[in-house]
Amino acid sequence: MGRGRTLEYPKTPVNKVNRYNQRATYDLEQIHGIINTSSVVHVSFNTPDPSNPFPVTLPMVGVAASYEHPSASLGEPLDIYLHGYVSSRLMNLSRNAETESKTNTPDASASPTGLPVTISATKVDGLILTLTPNTHDINYRSAIVYGYASLVTDVGEKLWAMEQVTNSVLRARWRFTRVPPDSAEMQSTSILRVSVVGGSGKIRVGGPRDEQKDLVRDDLRENIWTGVVPVYECLGEPVPHKGNRVKDVPAHVLEYVTEMREANEKYAADAIADQSQD
Amino acid sequence: MGRGRTLEYPKTPVNKVNRYNQRATYDLEQIHGIINTSSVVHVSFNTPDPSNPFPVTLPMVGVAASYEHPSASLGEPLDIYLHGYVSSRLMNLSRNAETESKTNTPDASASPTGLPVTISATKVDGLILTLTPNTHDINYRSAIVYGYASLVTDVGEKLWAMEQVTNSVLRARWRFTRVPPDSAEMQSTSILRVSVVGGSGKIRVGGPRDEQKDLVRDDLRENIWTGVVPVYECLGEPVPHKGNRVKDVPAHVLEYVTEMREANEKYAADAIADQSQD
Repeated sequence: MGRGRTLEYPKTPVNKVNRYNQRATYDLEQIHGIINTSSVVHVSFNTPDPSNPFPVTLPMVGVAASYEHPSASLGEPLDIYLHGYVSSRLMNLSRNAETESKTNTPDASASPTGLPVTISATKVDGLILTLTPNTHDINYRSAIVYGYASLVTDVGEKLWAMEQVTNSVLRARWRFTRVPPDSAEMQSTSILRVSVVGGSGKIRVGGPRDEQKDLVRDDLRENIWTGVVPVYECLGEPVPHKGNRVKDVPAHVLEYVTEMREANEKYAADAIADQSQD
Repeated sequence: MGRGRTLEYPKTPVNKVNRYNQRATYDLEQIHGIINTSSVVHVSFNTPDPSNPFPVTLPMVGVAASYEHPSASLGEPLDIYLHGYVSSRLMNLSRNAETESKTNTPDASASPTGLPVTISATKVDGLILTLTPNTHDINYRSAIVYGYASLVTDVGEKLWAMEQVTNSVLRARWRFTRVPPDSAEMQSTSILRVSVVGGSGKIRVGGPRDEQKDLVRDDLRENIWTGVVPVYECLGEPVPHKGNRVKDVPAHVLEYVTEMREANEKYAADAIADQSQD
């Protein structure tokens, strides 16, 4: 990752990663990659209710992409498109924030319109088993992106975004289904575009890292197994619906399932071998 | 789940789930179960910086448990213990919030002390492939818990919580390692206890749910495959560390890996078969 020219999110007090036994990254390609390989992301935001001190967090389908530059790579600046499937509350807040934003802007320097949201995605890659609890750890990849969410109103952008969202669930699925959505479906679907102002990632790779005080003790090393349990998201054999009439599972499904299964397992194995932090 | 007496979190404007093609749950057993089977949870909170409108979200190890009632089941009221591994910022905010809380309480009715945090965990169980993009969906389990985070200062509770956290990474691991932590390790470890004031969950199970307008079209049904791709977290074969001297992978590791692998795969399959929402 990060080959050739790499763009990074600026380090600010908001997104600065406190390093601790992990690698911080501000590399756009890595951060966008974590988001786009996560079927579900968490979207956190605050409600206007002053009696509620808790951020609201919703699981949503999210994809990093650019409508203005559809051919943009993961390493370039992208918006995050969110399918507002389960969050009429978020949709309303975004609509309100948009109308208010001219007069009530939390961070003028970022010239934001919309609702401030924090998007997070984490993938667990392995369980690190060491000689003592304090050195136990987890291999993982985590991405956090900050930005301002607005409802997509342009019909062309909305249709394009719906295709990105559908294909983020299963690659290329859109063109193998009944499209385009009819007017009722376009009406009933809400898509949020998050204009990203910053982000960061944390990545832990490698194996056990025990401390010298334990490594020198034969009584520990001869009795405590140390190593890594690889963890990865597995895609199983596709299960046809009872109403399905197509005999064979189509290639676009089989290829994606096989590819993702192998890629995820490979990442977990490569993460263990990666000693770059040791 | 939810057998016999079931306790539920109260429905409030904060945690009320907007139902849409999914089952909302306030059942403690289900919500705590999602958190305790997630190796990593997301913790969101606000910073005091008025120029930062974005919630901060950190990946942390979290476990629902009760120090006062260690034998409490998942269906009973529990605290959430967080390992403050990567979040010195969160630790400092909690320390400050605690000292200020007497004079500055966001929600007196909940008699909180500590920093308001929102803990979220989501597990993806399947990809729902239907006749048209708008009916595509994801089988998933999501849990959100709200509460007030405070640093654990009592040595007994802290030691107990460190054991819970360690065993949440791999069941029973604590007693097979060098314990107890020495004084330096106790000093350097920070544990947060979140006093939970509310929570909710969302669960989507079942298969494709197409609309009548598409189901009546033979041209669609004879050309578009519909079904589910099961998704589950897979634990791979344990990989010994280069410095490991114990010949065989111990039973507590092998049993956990096998059990979790089978349980996760079974849940994804059962979720497809579950027509309770159809």
